[in-house]
Amino acid sequence: MSVVLSRDSQVRVMEDTVTNAEKHLGQFCSMLAAYTRKTAQVRDKADQLVKQLTDFANTEHPEMRATLRSFAEDLAKVQDYRQAEVERLETKVISPLKLYGAHIKQTRAEIKKLKQVQKNEIKQLAKLGKLRQKSPSDRLTISQAETSVQRASADASHTTHQLGEMIEAFQKRKLTDLQKIFSDFVTIEMVLHAKAVEVYSSAFQTLENYDPERDLEDFRAKMHGLYGHRDARPLTDTVSSPAVPWSLTGQSAQNALRGERREDEETMEASAEEDLRGRGRALHQ
Amino acid sequence: MSVVLSRDSQVRVMEDTVTNAEKHLGQFCSMLAAYTRKTAQVRDKADQLVKQLTDFANTEHPEMRATLRSFAEDLAKVQDYRQAEVERLETKVISPLKLYGAHIKQTRAEIKKLKQVQKNEIKQLAKLGKLRQKSPSDRLTISQAETSVQRASADASHTTHQLGEMIEAFQKRKLTDLQKIFSDFVTIEMVLHAKAVEVYSSAFQTLENYDPERDLEDFRAKMHGLYGHRDARPLTDTVSSPAVPWSLTGQSAQNALRGERREDEETMEASAEEDLRGRGRALHQ
Repeated sequence: MSVVLSRDSQVRVMEDTVTNAEKHLGQFCSMLAAYTRKTAQVRDKADQLVKQLTDFANTEHPEMRATLRSFAEDLAKVQDYRQAEVERLETKVISPLKLYGAHIKQTRAEIKKLKQVQKNEIKQLAKLGKLRQKSPSDRLTISQAETSVQRASADASHTTHQLGEMIEAFQKRKLTDLQKIFSDFVTIEMVLHAKAVEVYSSAFQTLENYDPERDLEDFRAKMHGLYGHRDARPLTDTVSSPAVPWSLTGQSAQNALRGERREDEETMEASAEEDLRGRGRALHQ
Repeated sequence: MSVVLSRDSQVRVMEDTVTNAEKHLGQFCSMLAAYTRKTAQVRDKADQLVKQLTDFANTEHPEMRATLRSFAEDLAKVQDYRQAEVERLETKVISPLKLYGAHIKQTRAEIKKLKQVQKNEIKQLAKLGKLRQKSPSDRLTISQAETSVQRASADASHTTHQLGEMIEAFQKRKLTDLQKIFSDFVTIEMVLHAKAVEVYSSAFQTLENYDPERDLEDFRAKMHGLYGHRDARPLTDTVSSPAVPWSLTGQSAQNALRGERREDEETMEASAEEDLRGRGRALHQ
């Protein structure tokens, strides 16, 4: 009795082991995939911010422009590291967990086979028990049934032993794989965080060094115009011309001003875009 | 003429300054808010992973249980820092950018007032021009019109000057605020990343130190059962009992086993939950 009982409990431990692994590893897989997706979305939002910073830089005076571009580049670098993080998480964390699906299915099929073998043992035992009750004197049939029981028992013992080894290997692999997967997770995260500290330290310095004074001088010059605004200029000079062309002349002067600025901006924008393209996502590949 | 032209171009520079600030600062605000929201979602996913790790730890053997719990705690710590990051981004980055909305609206209203004053100057100039063409000999009316033009001009000059200073201050504040806001952004991010490196370094050590051998011994003992499985045990002992009770006895034995384990798990779970509560989100406040 105790052998059959022991085998039964062994099978239950095996089943529990596989079911538990299936449940938890599956959950780890989907949770880590969700974590990775959200991280990719943070990267996307930061990429938009980089683009926006570059656009804005092109509308600013030289000092702020240089500062914002440098900041945008650093922010883009961090996103490159984040992209690398996402790809590494997929390769070294999510993929290995996904592989467990097939592994578990296969192990479950082996357990099912064992259960069939055990069922057969119990069936043979029941048959023998009945025979002993019904026809205790039928030595030949009882002897045949005893042989069947022995054969079924040996089969069950052998299969249980084999499967025991298989489940032990399964458990060992699970433990070492989890150790490896979580270590890889931690390493991947550490690389991102360490690189980000490095890049942001330089970004902080750039922002810290920004002095708005020169840009403000430029701004003042721009606001006070190319015309050299003089409040003291005699009014009579201004009133000698007809009123209507003011706005026209004013507008065309403004257009000229804008035209100049726009050209300047376009050049800046083109070179900034080139910079971005040049740098690319070197880390993504 | 040039004074009016100059004022006109000054107003356009002012308008451009405010419009540009409104557009870009508004976009920065919504992009950084989106970035912060996504970061909060990463935190949520990681929090789920922490819970899952704790649940799983409770089903594992002592060494893996301790390792997973330690890892879950470290992961939770990083999420505490991430929560602090989210809160700081909201306070020190998003809120100041939001405040620009009202500031810009107010500045725009001042520019509108100036444009009215300038319109009046042009109107008075046009009136004077017409008078000079129509009735060049009407000295009194022309003189009155000239006085009106002078008054309107003085008003326009004064208002333009005042607004010029206001816009300069606006631009200065924008530049230094952006410097501060982006520096704060970088600092907040740096703190998270630096703390994460620290916490993950310790998590890495814990995972590295895990040795599955002891857990596997436990597992073997559990799988080979409380019954002390012996293959050599004589079969005759086992065949003397009826077949049906096997499964029943087997099940109750299994229940006993499970009951024991479950009780163990519950204690573990309760204490783990207490740990989590105790630690709380100390960093969130």
